[in-house]
Amino acid sequence: MENKTIRITVAGPRGKMGAETLQMISETPHFELVAAIDNKNDGLVISDINGLPDLNAPIYTDIEQCFSNVGTDVLIDFTHPEAGKAHFEAALAYGVRPVIGTSGFTNDDVKGFRSRIEEKGSGGIIAPNFAIGAVLLMKFSQFASKYLPDIEIIEQHHDQKKDAPSGTAVKTAELIQEVRQMKQQGHPDEQETIQGARGAEMNGIRIHSVRLPGLVAHQEVIFGGEGELLTLRHDSMNRKSFMTGVRYAVDTVMTIDTLVYGLENILD
Amino acid sequence: MENKTIRITVAGPRGKMGAETLQMISETPHFELVAAIDNKNDGLVISDINGLPDLNAPIYTDIEQCFSNVGTDVLIDFTHPEAGKAHFEAALAYGVRPVIGTSGFTNDDVKGFRSRIEEKGSGGIIAPNFAIGAVLLMKFSQFASKYLPDIEIIEQHHDQKKDAPSGTAVKTAELIQEVRQMKQQGHPDEQETIQGARGAEMNGIRIHSVRLPGLVAHQEVIFGGEGELLTLRHDSMNRKSFMTGVRYAVDTVMTIDTLVYGLENILD
Amino acid sequence: MENKTIRITVAGPRGKMGAETLQMISETPHFELVAAIDNKNDGLVISDINGLPDLNAPIYTDIEQCFSNVGTDVLIDFTHPEAGKAHFEAALAYGVRPVIGTSGFTNDDVKGFRSRIEEKGSGGIIAPNFAIGAVLLMKFSQFASKYLPDIEIIEQHHDQKKDAPSGTAVKTAELIQEVRQMKQQGHPDEQETIQGARGAEMNGIRIHSVRLPGLVAHQEVIFGGEGELLTLRHDSMNRKSFMTGVRYAVDTVMTIDTLVYGLENILD
Amino acid sequence: MENKTIRITVAGPRGKMGAETLQMISETPHFELVAAIDNKNDGLVISDINGLPDLNAPIYTDIEQCFSNVGTDVLIDFTHPEAGKAHFEAALAYGVRPVIGTSGFTNDDVKGFRSRIEEKGSGGIIAPNFAIGAVLLMKFSQFASKYLPDIEIIEQHHDQKKDAPSGTAVKTAELIQEVRQMKQQGHPDEQETIQGARGAEMNGIRIHSVRLPGLVAHQEVIFGGEGELLTLRHDSMNRKSFMTGVRYAVDTVMTIDTLVYGLENILD
Repeated sequence: MENKTIRITVAGPRGKMGAETLQMISETPHFELVAAIDNKNDGLVISDINGLPDLNAPIYTDIEQCFSNVGTDVLIDFTHPEAGKAHFEAALAYGVRPVIGTSGFTNDDVKGFRSRIEEKGSGGIIAPNFAIGAVLLMKFSQFASKYLPDIEIIEQHHDQKKDAPSGTAVKTAELIQEVRQMKQQGHPDEQETIQGARGAEMNGIRIHSVRLPGLVAHQEVIFGGEGELLTLRHDSMNRKSFMTGVRYAVDTVMTIDTLVYGLENILD
Repeated sequence: MENKTIRITVAGPRGKMGAETLQMISETPHFELVAAIDNKNDGLVISDINGLPDLNAPIYTDIEQCFSNVGTDVLIDFTHPEAGKAHFEAALAYGVRPVIGTSGFTNDDVKGFRSRIEEKGSGGIIAPNFAIGAVLLMKFSQFASKYLPDIEIIEQHHDQKKDAPSGTAVKTAELIQEVRQMKQQGHPDEQETIQGARGAEMNGIRIHSVRLPGLVAHQEVIFGGEGELLTLRHDSMNRKSFMTGVRYAVDTVMTIDTLVYGLENILD
Repeated sequence: MENKTIRITVAGPRGKMGAETLQMISETPHFELVAAIDNKNDGLVISDINGLPDLNAPIYTDIEQCFSNVGTDVLIDFTHPEAGKAHFEAALAYGVRPVIGTSGFTNDDVKGFRSRIEEKGSGGIIAPNFAIGAVLLMKFSQFASKYLPDIEIIEQHHDQKKDAPSGTAVKTAELIQEVRQMKQQGHPDEQETIQGARGAEMNGIRIHSVRLPGLVAHQEVIFGGEGELLTLRHDSMNRKSFMTGVRYAVDTVMTIDTLVYGLENILD
Repeated sequence: MENKTIRITVAGPRGKMGAETLQMISETPHFELVAAIDNKNDGLVISDINGLPDLNAPIYTDIEQCFSNVGTDVLIDFTHPEAGKAHFEAALAYGVRPVIGTSGFTNDDVKGFRSRIEEKGSGGIIAPNFAIGAVLLMKFSQFASKYLPDIEIIEQHHDQKKDAPSGTAVKTAELIQEVRQMKQQGHPDEQETIQGARGAEMNGIRIHSVRLPGLVAHQEVIFGGEGELLTLRHDSMNRKSFMTGVRYAVDTVMTIDTLVYGLENILD
């Protein structure tokens, strides 16, 4: 397919996700960074900021002034909930399509914004998680659990992580629970000779949390059936792993006329 | 859910798949084996045959006589294409719902049988592959390839297998090709210092075939994205792995009013 | 290397391990089954027994009579401790080299038999576990733990197994403990939000037990270091996996002049 | 064990390995950086150099002047062969124990340096590869190949790597070849329906090279036996993975009285 250039403004350019987004835009031929929204540095350009890519886009502290001056197709926002909502309003007002990576929107927020964006005939995407591989893993896990309901999850993270199990593992188990018939797994007379061997239990599913130096962020969902195993695994090495999802969201937001919440809902 | 007993006749009870099917039926509380169709042993019962489970179901060589005498809900057929078609006809005539594991039905065969089964208000399933884990792997691989188009396949089999790559690996690559934008993978200046290192190429996808004693039948599809990996793996240990799919097909065929070809099309 | 034929007598030919051993001997060109010791079937030959390979070796209930009549190089014994010791005595008396798979020999038993076998200038092997892959896994794990002391073990078995963790996992952790400097792994403030997530603890090492249909017997030992992981994995699919070790023990017992306890001690 | 502080001078502090080494020293309680040898920056201290850790050690361009002024136990050298040899001479002269990560020493170089270091009653280590996990993987692979001679290697790297198979995979196969009885693997009538499926062949061993974005540097060696598999895997995520080996070499060089070539030879 031929890709028309998409003009992008990034809010939060100095944060970790924002900085990765600038890099991703600079490496994507049909994306163009036209401006950035920052809470300081008004009047500078991106390349003035130490550590950011050599891009010439102007920085604004006032989003309305930005949208008045610079033609923008898509706003990518990696700020915080309060700023995210204000930026959403500005995007609505100026016909800019928002892609928001800020969590903290309630169901009511989303419903309200959705009806207003639909009235305008515009589109938007809000996603708390842009890791496309992780989102696919959860989607496939939910699907497979209908047919292979014996499931264990092994999640593996670096040994600086304090909580176990990981949020992604818990969310995966919750998504599975929505569709899986309740099933008590394992042998009825199963016994742990050392406590904890069989892991954490959520609705009959067992979750095991491995913590070691050298690990980054990994998750394996294993489905056991008579004479077969299906294993789904995601390895996330670094923050760049979110950029495939952000890029996909930008391309998609240009083609929809509603507000979608959750990356999984634009994967079909 | 409460399961009403399903009365099943099995054609081909002495074959490898047929014998496994008898075993599976005997272990499934809401399934009942009511008869078997064999090309010999007319008048005996299953438990008379050496190596088959201790089931009391009568054996018929004539399928019409069988259906006249024994109330049957579902016919499971693991014979060969010619017999399979004749058995399909008999099932149609007697209002029995067929689940056919015989390959060799052409597209035209399927279309013809479908319109006739729909006229009768009945349902049927034809599937060349009942390995539900393998079918899920192929379905997920096709889906993921839209978002993560850099893909390699590693298939692993025992060292008595003569051909490489495996049929499942080739079929997986074909399914991916239907939806994936063409992409030449790897470095443009890539060089093999020993020929074959980079595997077999199909449309830019690389397939690697491992053959070792101790392996049974395994396939891994690896999707690489910036900073992340998604890995889908299926391990098939023995023929029992087909029974989850057969069981699911029997339950499903009772609820549909058309003819479905391919297990993947009754997974939603 | 050229292999001289080794004449073998098997004690316990109808047990699971004994029957696999007969099969292995029949498939190994330089091994010859010359007799079997059974507690019944005196005077028959192996091929008379239903389910055993088509071998012509005579069956004796009296081991001394057997060794008097039939020239034997090696006795393979898969019986029980008491019979194993009596068979060991007979082997000593007749200059036959014993390979004993029976557990239940005490340290004192082994010492006593060792000095007597050395006096005779003969050799013998006693091994509670002939799975050469599992023995290598334990040996390598112990070695690696000296350099990479952050370790977690994931063992995976079918869901009919009642106890967790597995005996092999516990033994692996004990072997590691012999050489690893004590180290408390994980973050000091680590918290389980669901109990058991971090698995069973043995001397700071975490063990996770997965139980699913479709699994057979698998163990993974993961060593984490700064920026790297070393993973050692063993998959045991069936009882045939012991035969590589039995075959190696038979070849080795012909070349040693002492009594070795444990397969790991003939691997160098 | 109680660790006496080891005083270290690093040659090549601004290179990638040198800079990681400074970091590692600063994080190791019983290591102390006392000086650095650089080809510029004479008279500055490490913390003056942009991007290096905040350490107060002085920088010298003249190694002899450095050793005269600053008491040093160990020299860590990540420069280039020529400088490495000159630094070795200086270390010999001043009773400093060298740990050299520079490749390019010939067998004769090593022999010559070894006899001179032994005369002095000193010790030294030269290692082209400090990745302790990779060295363990190769050592274990060689060992296991004596007992399980059916072997395939899968190496996986990012898609910017141009050559296949990797140097480590080739070296692993060479080490295996030293001890493994020659064996033609796979079925004698094996056929590739797509060329390259069975990978690269080295002495009967097959090597498969996977290249994908998201991968870093990984190697798996799979040993197949009747009914079992042994898999050894190394994942290297970043350059930090070399530091475990450098740290181990520094501790070890203080205890030996010869020159050792190759990290594998100080692992026992």
